[in-house]
Amino acid sequence: MEFETLLKIVSSLLDKNEFTALRSMLGEINSVDIAEIMEQLEPVKRLRLFRIMSKDMSAEVFAYLEPESQTEIVKMISDRELQGLVNELYIDDAVDFLEEVPANVVTRVLEQATPETRKLINKFMNYPESSAGSIMTIEMVQLRDDMTARDAIESIRRTGLDKETVYTCYCTDAQHTLLGSVPLLHLLLFKEDTLVRDIMEDDAKLISVNTHDDQEDVAAIVKKYDLLSVPVVDNENRLVGIITVDDIVDVIEEEATEDFEKMAKVQHSDEGYLKTGVFSHVRHRIVWLLILMVSATFTGKLIDNFETTLSAVAGLTACIPMLMDTGGNSGNQASTLIIRGLAVGDITPKDYLKIVWKELRVAVICGLILGAVNIGRMFLLSQFSATGSHDIHVFLVVSAAMVFAVIVAKLMGCTLPIGAKLIHLDPALMAGPMLTTIVDLVTLIIYLSLANAFLMPK
Amino acid sequence: MEFETLLKIVSSLLDKNEFTALRSMLGEINSVDIAEIMEQLEPVKRLRLFRIMSKDMSAEVFAYLEPESQTEIVKMISDRELQGLVNELYIDDAVDFLEEVPANVVTRVLEQATPETRKLINKFMNYPESSAGSIMTIEMVQLRDDMTARDAIESIRRTGLDKETVYTCYCTDAQHTLLGSVPLLHLLLFKEDTLVRDIMEDDAKLISVNTHDDQEDVAAIVKKYDLLSVPVVDNENRLVGIITVDDIVDVIEEEATEDFEKMAKVQHSDEGYLKTGVFSHVRHRIVWLLILMVSATFTGKLIDNFETTLSAVAGLTACIPMLMDTGGNSGNQASTLIIRGLAVGDITPKDYLKIVWKELRVAVICGLILGAVNIGRMFLLSQFSATGSHDIHVFLVVSAAMVFAVIVAKLMGCTLPIGAKLIHLDPALMAGPMLTTIVDLVTLIIYLSLANAFLMPK
Repeated sequence: MEFETLLKIVSSLLDKNEFTALRSMLGEINSVDIAEIMEQLEPVKRLRLFRIMSKDMSAEVFAYLEPESQTEIVKMISDRELQGLVNELYIDDAVDFLEEVPANVVTRVLEQATPETRKLINKFMNYPESSAGSIMTIEMVQLRDDMTARDAIESIRRTGLDKETVYTCYCTDAQHTLLGSVPLLHLLLFKEDTLVRDIMEDDAKLISVNTHDDQEDVAAIVKKYDLLSVPVVDNENRLVGIITVDDIVDVIEEEATEDFEKMAKVQHSDEGYLKTGVFSHVRHRIVWLLILMVSATFTGKLIDNFETTLSAVAGLTACIPMLMDTGGNSGNQASTLIIRGLAVGDITPKDYLKIVWKELRVAVICGLILGAVNIGRMFLLSQFSATGSHDIHVFLVVSAAMVFAVIVAKLMGCTLPIGAKLIHLDPALMAGPMLTTIVDLVTLIIYLSLANAFLMPK
Repeated sequence: MEFETLLKIVSSLLDKNEFTALRSMLGEINSVDIAEIMEQLEPVKRLRLFRIMSKDMSAEVFAYLEPESQTEIVKMISDRELQGLVNELYIDDAVDFLEEVPANVVTRVLEQATPETRKLINKFMNYPESSAGSIMTIEMVQLRDDMTARDAIESIRRTGLDKETVYTCYCTDAQHTLLGSVPLLHLLLFKEDTLVRDIMEDDAKLISVNTHDDQEDVAAIVKKYDLLSVPVVDNENRLVGIITVDDIVDVIEEEATEDFEKMAKVQHSDEGYLKTGVFSHVRHRIVWLLILMVSATFTGKLIDNFETTLSAVAGLTACIPMLMDTGGNSGNQASTLIIRGLAVGDITPKDYLKIVWKELRVAVICGLILGAVNIGRMFLLSQFSATGSHDIHVFLVVSAAMVFAVIVAKLMGCTLPIGAKLIHLDPALMAGPMLTTIVDLVTLIIYLSLANAFLMPK
């Protein structure tokens, strides 16, 4: 059914107080879609719809709402309802929600949580941002190694898990030390009285991450080994949670977005484009714009210093934008490929020499082609135009400068990101802005020096 | 264990023909890591290691090898071994492999496949590139709606599935029409003689994709609904495969990489940076470099035409790079945010007016700040330098041009990607290169016209 139709039906059923029809209809709709419908309703209607749903359904839908709607609902419901909601939410959803809402809402929510939930929430909120701990879930199948397959299945049946959990069970000893993993299916395949420890894949093969590992590293591991989930352990190798691949999907997307932003010289906003206010947008963009504008003072000084040369030879000035753009584009091609290669693990800093050698050859070939085409282009222009240069020496100097600019740009383009990576800085953050400034400057220096040496009347 | 140590041990065990030790050691190592070790061995040793492994292990490891190593192994093994390998591989792994290797290898592999496997492989290879069909797997749990829970579990136990499969079972009727889904756990939770059709979540809530859907759309659905797998159906709604979230991870990463490349004006290579040869790199980069260089002819002509103005007023030329860079950076910030927003579904074309209004305000504020700082910068420079401009009118003209340039750049930066999306072109591909050229031109026209109007002696 079309979303708009669905929205209309829900809205009119709400108006007519047709709660039974509404409830059975909601049963047929995915929670993600219900949340989307709720976003479109006015606050009072939204609350009514929220109250119609069963406790677990409303908690699930709540987790998919935007922080603004979550805050509004929390403000409007009674302490008792809030208590039900908080304790029904998955801990990681509760934490996600609490991280986005105003402090007074957080306080009220924590007051209504059971002491146990509160303790868990606090623990989660203390994990460093972007750490494995901050994205893990604690709803998982945890089996003791001395259980039998029968006990294990019975224990799973009892806890009645659902979609938050992938069907890999992790086995621990009595002290919660992680020992190994068992796919649920293996429990079914073995004789009922086989011990879990005899079924499980043991330690050597088991891949786990630490609560303090960076989410980007966790994502790399999950991708490399095609895992559906990975167990998270604390410093004593005790199992504290799992991270499922659907959370990794979000991490991968987030990291790619941050790299896009860094390369476009924009500071990251967690809120998404439309939600970010005008002044936040300005704040996220103005710093780099200012830095780069001020750093362009150097290119300006350079041009000032060569003003005599530029005004003495016709057509020299006109080629400045082309040279700078070509240099910039060449460098940007190299740096983007390297930054992305580093991010997806396709390249490591120890490939540096191979990369430089490759870029050098690519740059020489690209530079020569561009230089040759440029001579043709300038020659053609000179045939059809009175302004601009008609001097073959100018063509040669511009093309020579272009070849050098492309080579410098490509070499800097691969060196800066790898250099940044080596000294543990962010390749995307360091390489982008510095590259522009350096390539601009070097291109101009080469160009103006060549012009000065070969084109000025002796 | 360290990878290097592991490699040394494996290598020396191979030399000493200690196959039993080797086999039990391999049992403890993840297939991904074994593949990585094999890549480092010389071909003859690689083949020996390959032959030591059990049939299913060797197939799994084979799937993780690079195409070159796969080709080499296929060339060295007997027809009989090849037969075993092909029929042991998952169909989607076999297809991935066949898509990368030389044609003569493909022929030989298909000859050794069972007719059934061959038919399946051919069918897979006919799905359009990047379609759901091309990334799906057919190894899945498929239950009939008239089975009981007991039959269902028995059938699962018999087929003995492993990690390729997520533990959601899809239910069909006798004609394979997709009816609904059942998490494996629910089968365990219900009474043994309950019919599958009474347990399953039915059609209305079930999300499925068509074999011809684009993988990017599939990824969006899997993300939106936090799915671990999604069923793939043909045009008659018959279940033909499933796509698991770990394959979606690859899709998301691939799509992000392609967008990075497009925005850096590089054509996509499937092979990764290091594997791509120098001439391929040149081919992937030179086209855009040439187009952009030639299109810089317009900025060149513009400067030529204003040559009198530029040489009449000191310091005008020196500001050209700064203005163009600032315009370019401003436009790039906007277009990157919009392109990424469109890619992750955060923005849709119908938000266009909201976005333009936001960008306009951001641009005016950024422009005014940059303009003000620029006047200060130029004033300071004039105090400490003999060259360059000392005329407050020049400062004002440069800053005014900057404000306009930032506004035009930001508006073009959001308009081009959304326009491209509306006419079903790729926002990343269209917006990047066109933006540079347009913003360069408009910035220069504004700057030079203002200079001509206000700074030239009457």
